[in-house]
Amino acid sequence: MATLGFKHLVVVKFKEEARVDEILKGLEKLVSEIDDVKSFEWGEDIESHEMLRQGFTHAFSMTFENKEAYVSFTSHPLHVDFSAAFTAAIDKIVLLDFPVVMVKPSSS
Amino acid sequence: MATLGFKHLVVVKFKEEARVDEILKGLEKLVSEIDDVKSFEWGEDIESHEMLRQGFTHAFSMTFENKEAYVSFTSHPLHVDFSAAFTAAIDKIVLLDFPVVMVKPSSS
Repeated sequence: MATLGFKHLVVVKFKEEARVDEILKGLEKLVSEIDDVKSFEWGEDIESHEMLRQGFTHAFSMTFENKEAYVSFTSHPLHVDFSAAFTAAIDKIVLLDFPVVMVKPSSS
Repeated sequence: MATLGFKHLVVVKFKEEARVDEILKGLEKLVSEIDDVKSFEWGEDIESHEMLRQGFTHAFSMTFENKEAYVSFTSHPLHVDFSAAFTAAIDKIVLLDFPVVMVKPSSS
């Protein structure tokens, strides 16, 4: 087991009127412009039972070198701007920030 | 942007009396014994504001080659057994299952 970076995980339900495509474009731009973001992936639930996903539809996961890089990202002006637009588009959110514990690396 | 596998994301709040260390051992054993699980990582939130994490404390993320591999995993006897123990230990859960969209790969 190894600790591999620091993760910023965001699980959301967007408002019905939200322009999700624009949010996604904004996120792509954001992560491409901020070097602290080492990797970024996301997905839209297609399989979970409604009861288990509890209305949440999208997950966003950003990885940073360490907690300091994440903290620096949160105060980056581009992130601050984006967060305001993002917050306006969401109905529900859960946010977790944690050092990654890698049990089974994808290279195995 | 590329789609890289299928992800099973589980965000939970454990019951106060839950033996989280035993759950983690069970998870490590589970993923080591089931080849369909390509990678597995997890984390315990240390940074998010209580309001934003909404009581959730742990995130678990498993990656599969594709949706079929994930579906096969869900019906694996070891997973079925483990799920019963896991369910007994949790207070709240959100589950999302989705094809991964990789915007910024970690190699960049």
